[in-house]
Amino acid sequence: MKPSIPKGTRDFGPAEMQKRQYILDIVRNNFELFGYQPIETPSMENITTLTGKYGDEGDKLIFKILNSGDYLSGDYLKDIGFGIEEFTRFYENWKVNKTGDTSLSELLDHKALLPYISEKALRYDLTVPFARYVVMNQHQITFPFKRYQVQPVWRADRPQKGRYREFYQCDADVIGSDSLINELDLISLMDKSFRELNVPVIIKFNNRKILSALAEVINEPSKIIDITVAIDKLDKVGKDGVNKELSEKGISAKAIETLQPLLEFKGDNSQKVEVLRKLVGNNEEGKKGIEEIEYLLNNCNLSFARIELDITLARGLNYYTGTIFEVKANAGTFTPSILGGGRYDDLTGIFGLKNMSGVGISFGIDRIYDVMEELNLFPDHVSKVSSTKLLFAHFDLDTQKHCLKLAARLRENNISCEIYPDVTKKLGKQFEYADKKNIPFVCTVGGDEIASQTYSFKNMTSGEQKKLSLNELIDELNKNRDDI
Amino acid sequence: MKPSIPKGTRDFGPAEMQKRQYILDIVRNNFELFGYQPIETPSMENITTLTGKYGDEGDKLIFKILNSGDYLSGDYLKDIGFGIEEFTRFYENWKVNKTGDTSLSELLDHKALLPYISEKALRYDLTVPFARYVVMNQHQITFPFKRYQVQPVWRADRPQKGRYREFYQCDADVIGSDSLINELDLISLMDKSFRELNVPVIIKFNNRKILSALAEVINEPSKIIDITVAIDKLDKVGKDGVNKELSEKGISAKAIETLQPLLEFKGDNSQKVEVLRKLVGNNEEGKKGIEEIEYLLNNCNLSFARIELDITLARGLNYYTGTIFEVKANAGTFTPSILGGGRYDDLTGIFGLKNMSGVGISFGIDRIYDVMEELNLFPDHVSKVSSTKLLFAHFDLDTQKHCLKLAARLRENNISCEIYPDVTKKLGKQFEYADKKNIPFVCTVGGDEIASQTYSFKNMTSGEQKKLSLNELIDELNKNRDDI
Repeated sequence: MKPSIPKGTRDFGPAEMQKRQYILDIVRNNFELFGYQPIETPSMENITTLTGKYGDEGDKLIFKILNSGDYLSGDYLKDIGFGIEEFTRFYENWKVNKTGDTSLSELLDHKALLPYISEKALRYDLTVPFARYVVMNQHQITFPFKRYQVQPVWRADRPQKGRYREFYQCDADVIGSDSLINELDLISLMDKSFRELNVPVIIKFNNRKILSALAEVINEPSKIIDITVAIDKLDKVGKDGVNKELSEKGISAKAIETLQPLLEFKGDNSQKVEVLRKLVGNNEEGKKGIEEIEYLLNNCNLSFARIELDITLARGLNYYTGTIFEVKANAGTFTPSILGGGRYDDLTGIFGLKNMSGVGISFGIDRIYDVMEELNLFPDHVSKVSSTKLLFAHFDLDTQKHCLKLAARLRENNISCEIYPDVTKKLGKQFEYADKKNIPFVCTVGGDEIASQTYSFKNMTSGEQKKLSLNELIDELNKNRDDI
Repeated sequence: MKPSIPKGTRDFGPAEMQKRQYILDIVRNNFELFGYQPIETPSMENITTLTGKYGDEGDKLIFKILNSGDYLSGDYLKDIGFGIEEFTRFYENWKVNKTGDTSLSELLDHKALLPYISEKALRYDLTVPFARYVVMNQHQITFPFKRYQVQPVWRADRPQKGRYREFYQCDADVIGSDSLINELDLISLMDKSFRELNVPVIIKFNNRKILSALAEVINEPSKIIDITVAIDKLDKVGKDGVNKELSEKGISAKAIETLQPLLEFKGDNSQKVEVLRKLVGNNEEGKKGIEEIEYLLNNCNLSFARIELDITLARGLNYYTGTIFEVKANAGTFTPSILGGGRYDDLTGIFGLKNMSGVGISFGIDRIYDVMEELNLFPDHVSKVSSTKLLFAHFDLDTQKHCLKLAARLRENNISCEIYPDVTKKLGKQFEYADKKNIPFVCTVGGDEIASQTYSFKNMTSGEQKKLSLNELIDELNKNRDDI
C-alpha cells in the first residue's frame, strides 16, 4: 500500500514547523501584549451550531462527521413519508431501468438523509465557536472580553495555491464593547505584528454601514447580501463582471448606474471618503459609516503598514455590520488576503445573547508563510533547521552508556544533546549523522576519555578540536549559545 | 437556540489554557533537549491509512468524515449486486410490514455503504500518521529519525472521567534504530519531565517478547493477541476475570494453570525477573526479552520517578514488539495511565518500508492535567490566571486616544497592557474591570496628566499610588516584572 494524504492537506516537517512556529510566536506574543487571553474550543461542533452562519456557500463547505456505530439506524424513510405508494412507484421504475442503472440517489436524497447520519461537523472558522463559547460561559466572563485563539479550521474548498482544506486561524476578538478604540487597537496590533514579521502590507478597510446605506439609496435594501457578494468579487471578475452579477440578481439598470462611482474610483483615502459622502447623501446609516471611517483614518498610529480605505471591500461573511478589515502583502506576485476581520453587532444573538457588539481579526498564518517564503523574509536562524546542539559519539556499549550520564548533565543545564543511538565502532558514520542533521558540536567518548574525565570536543563548523572536562564543555556550549 | 458542545469534548478557558500550556511547555522543552524535532500531520487521513492498525475495537472508534457534496452518488447498490431479485424480495417484505415499520437499515448496510460515502477519517493516534509520514518522506529523512508531535486525536469512545473524544497526545519517537539506548534515553526523558511537573509517578514496563514466549511455552502461539488482550485487563477484572476470558478464548486449563505465577506474583523487580526466567525456560525469544529487561533495570538513571517491572503489563495496541511502557501517578485517587509507549519493529512495514525498528512514548496531557488538579500540583503563578500587566483608565474620547500612544510605548518595551475599551467618566467601573481581571496596575490618564506628561499609577495589590512619567512607568513595570 502506497501511502498518501487527503488532497488539500499537508504534512509539516521540522523545517516548516520551525518557520510556522516563528510566525505563531510573534502573533501570539502580540495578542498577549495587547491584552487578549487564550481559549480553545473543540474541533467538532454540533452541526446546528455551524449551519446558517456562513451563507449557503459556506454551509456546503462544512465537513460533516458520520455518527459512530450504526449511523443508518435513524428512521429516515418513515420521517420523509416514504410510504407504500412511493415505494411502489420507485419499484416500478427500478424494474424498467434494471439493476445497476438506478443509483442510490433516486431512493435517497443526500440532503434529507444528512440529519439522520451526521450530528457533528468540523469547525469552519473560530468566530462562531467563540460566539457559542461566550454565550455558554457568559456568567463567568468579565466583559468586555478579549480572547485569542490559535487552532486549525477545515473547509471542503477546492484546493489551490494558498487554499487548503485544513489551515490555521489565529484570531483576536473583543466582545462586549462598541467603542472604535478597539478597531484602532487592532490596527496597531496588525501594524506591530507585520512589522515584526517584516512583511510589507496594506491594511485595507471599509465599513459595512456604507454598503447598507447604498442598498437603501438605490432602493434595494433587501438585496444587501447580493450586492455585497457581487462587489466582493470585483478583484476577481472586474467591473463588468460585478455589473453583470448585479443585473442577474435583479438590480435595476438605474441602481447599477448609481453604484458606478464606487466601482471605478481611484484616489487617496480622503478623496474616497468624499466619493462615499456623495453616494450616501443624507442616509443616516451611511453618515454614521463615514464618521467611523474618518475616525479611524484620523487616529490610527502606524509604524510600518500602509492603511487604505478600499470602498469596494465587502467581505463575504454575513455577520459583519461595521468596520471590515483585509490585509494583503504589498510586494511579490502572490498577494492573497493574509488577514481578515471586522465588527459584528449581533454574533451571539443567534445563540440567545443579545446586544453584544464585537470586533476581531484573523491572521491567516498559512498564507503569511507562503508570502514570506516567496519574498524570502525568514531570518537566517529560522531558515536553517535547528537541531540539538551536541552529539555524543562513542565506540561500544560501555562508552555509549557513559554518554547517558554526560547527556543528563548537559540537559540539566538546558543544553540540548543526543547520543548516537546505534553501537558502532565507525566514528565516521556518527560524524556524518551530525553533519546531515546540522548538529554543530560532537563530543567523542572513548575509554581513555572516561578514565581521564576529559572529552574530545569538535566544532563542526570551524573544525577546531579540543579536550575538555564536563564543566568546561558546559561553559563552552553556553558561550556558543547565541552563535548557532 | 441554546448552544452546547458534543459530548466528550471540552472548551478551555484562559485559566485552563494557562495550566495546559505549562504542561506542554515542560514536555516540549524536554523533547527538544533530548534531540527530538517537531512535525505535524493533517487531522484527516485517508481511511485506508488508519483502518486495520488498532484492532477491531479501534476501527470502530475512528471518526469518519462524510464525503463533501452529494456523498450518495457512488454506485453502492450496483456494486453489492442488489439486483431486481433482491429488490423484489425487499419490496414484498416492505408490503407486509407497511410503511414506517421498515427501517433503512434493511435496505442499506452501514458497513457496506461506508466506503461509498466516506474516504477520510480523523486521526486516532499520532503513531500511525508518523509511520505514514516516515514512509512518504523516507528519502529526505536522516535516520535514525527522532521526532516529536503535539496534536489532538479523536476517538468515538464512551466519554467518562479521564476519557475524552478529543484529546491531545504528545509523542516522541525514534525510528531506524534498534538499540536499547533509546529506551534508556526515553526513561530519562520521562523521569526529567515528571520531575519538572512535580507529578510523583511509577514508570511501569514490560517486554512483549515475554508475552510471545509465554504463548509458545503454553503451546498457543497463534493466540498471542487474545492472551495479551486478556492479561491487559487484569487491573480491571482481576485474576478470575482474566482466567475466565482466557478460557473463553479456548486456552486450555493446563495452559492457564502455567500462566498463574504471572498473574499472582508480588515482589521486587529482581524477584519478578526470576519468575519470568522460570516461566520462559529455554525459549529463545523469552530469554532475549529477559536480557532486555535486565539491561534497562541495570542501566537506567532515575532522579525522581520509580521504575517497576510489571510482568502483567500488556498494552492493547497490536504493533508493539519489545519494551512497553506505561506511567501512572503514584498518589491521589485518580490514577489512570498518563503515558504509554513501546517498541515496534515493523510499524512502517504496512506502508512498504521494511526493517525500521522504532520506539516511542506518548504523554497524555489531558490526564496529567486532571492528576495535577487533584493533587494541587500547579505552581501559584500558574494557578492564578495571568492577564495584562496594566490597564489604562481615562475619562473621554480624547484621553482614551492618548492612551493608545502610551500603550504602544509599553508594548514596544514588551509590557502587556490594555486600554479600557468603553468611554465612561466612571473610574470606578474601570477599576472594577481591572480588579475582576487580576490586572495588577492601573494608569489613569486625564487632561492634567496629558498636559504634565506624568500619569497616576496605582498598584492594585498594595493600593500604593504615585505620579510617574512614561519612562519611569516603564522602569517601574520592568522592576515589577517578576513579582506578578
